[in-house]
Amino acid sequence: MSLPTLVRIFESHRAPNPRRVSIFLAEKRVEVERVEVDIMAGEHFADAHRKKAGSHHVPVAELSDGSFLTETVAICRYVEALHPEPNLMGADAKETAVIEMWQRRMEFSVLQNIAFVARHTIPAMQALEHEQVPEWGRACASRMEEALKGLDERLRESPFIAGARFTIADITAWVALDFMRVLRRGPPDGCEALLEWHDRVKARPSATV
Amino acid sequence: MSLPTLVRIFESHRAPNPRRVSIFLAEKRVEVERVEVDIMAGEHFADAHRKKAGSHHVPVAELSDGSFLTETVAICRYVEALHPEPNLMGADAKETAVIEMWQRRMEFSVLQNIAFVARHTIPAMQALEHEQVPEWGRACASRMEEALKGLDERLRESPFIAGARFTIADITAWVALDFMRVLRRGPPDGCEALLEWHDRVKARPSATV
Repeated sequence: MSLPTLVRIFESHRAPNPRRVSIFLAEKRVEVERVEVDIMAGEHFADAHRKKAGSHHVPVAELSDGSFLTETVAICRYVEALHPEPNLMGADAKETAVIEMWQRRMEFSVLQNIAFVARHTIPAMQALEHEQVPEWGRACASRMEEALKGLDERLRESPFIAGARFTIADITAWVALDFMRVLRRGPPDGCEALLEWHDRVKARPSATV
Repeated sequence: MSLPTLVRIFESHRAPNPRRVSIFLAEKRVEVERVEVDIMAGEHFADAHRKKAGSHHVPVAELSDGSFLTETVAICRYVEALHPEPNLMGADAKETAVIEMWQRRMEFSVLQNIAFVARHTIPAMQALEHEQVPEWGRACASRMEEALKGLDERLRESPFIAGARFTIADITAWVALDFMRVLRRGPPDGCEALLEWHDRVKARPSATV
């Protein structure tokens, strides 16, 4: 079975989703051409981007068979198939399911709430939304705090989010926490296990991308 | 490699995510014990549920090794590994990535927007939210319309959402559309391809679960 290879990534390098793919590739030691899409100028809404990607999102992966792949986790899963080591998404079916469970918890509880707070309360992020709803941003702030406390609880019992080793779940949570910088705030007080994990992940070479 | 089997599913059978798993299992012709969790009475927030599942969500899958798995798509991927046929999530790495791409588009654009509209504009759904934000529900109504028009466009060029055959992406979109009943509205006018697909999916035996 010959799989199409990865040709290039269209991204907006400071945005959380493209960063997840970049860190995933760095962990795999895969280097690939990058094309920057200026999302603050709305380039992702342009017909040229939408026609190519079939979506107005970044990142987009261009494959050697001329097709394009969107959706961060779909791109990561494809990269995992092309470059199985180091394993980041599970070595057998049970582990794959457990990692996906934690990855999705990080996505829906941690990353999405942080993103909603940012996109609905920071005026400059209006460019990314059809309509900002500040009431929603404020409601998500308390959901975000709860999610971070829950993550701290998890990290009191496990060295990494999905278990004994670093996986895509850690990448999602790390990028989410790093993105909190735009909110000029950190995790709630008392989240020592979360901060300790954060420092360990930050020390990895992939965290500098 | 001997994988733990599926023992039972904790669910709230009318809610969209448990329905996705039920339809997935019906397509696989897998029968399993069901335990109903009354989410309108808040049973999913009770300590007993949270301790078992590690999350306050449904569905939860109990496995024969005594562990529990949450997150709809993680459960489906595990069921796919236990029961590979009929294939619903991809037969090779490229197809798996394309199906995951479409599945996630359906989840984030179609299902999530419909769920936000319902949970933030229907008073009885207050029980499911920490805080209803009606402004958010209204903003998501236009996102929902855009998403359904986009899905109609896709279905003008493809018999099923991810390509030539029925997959998990169709399950997510079908459950989402069916859930629109609580909003007492359907897709925007002119979505003929979407309605035609809807009727074809509705005719499958799995759609009756």
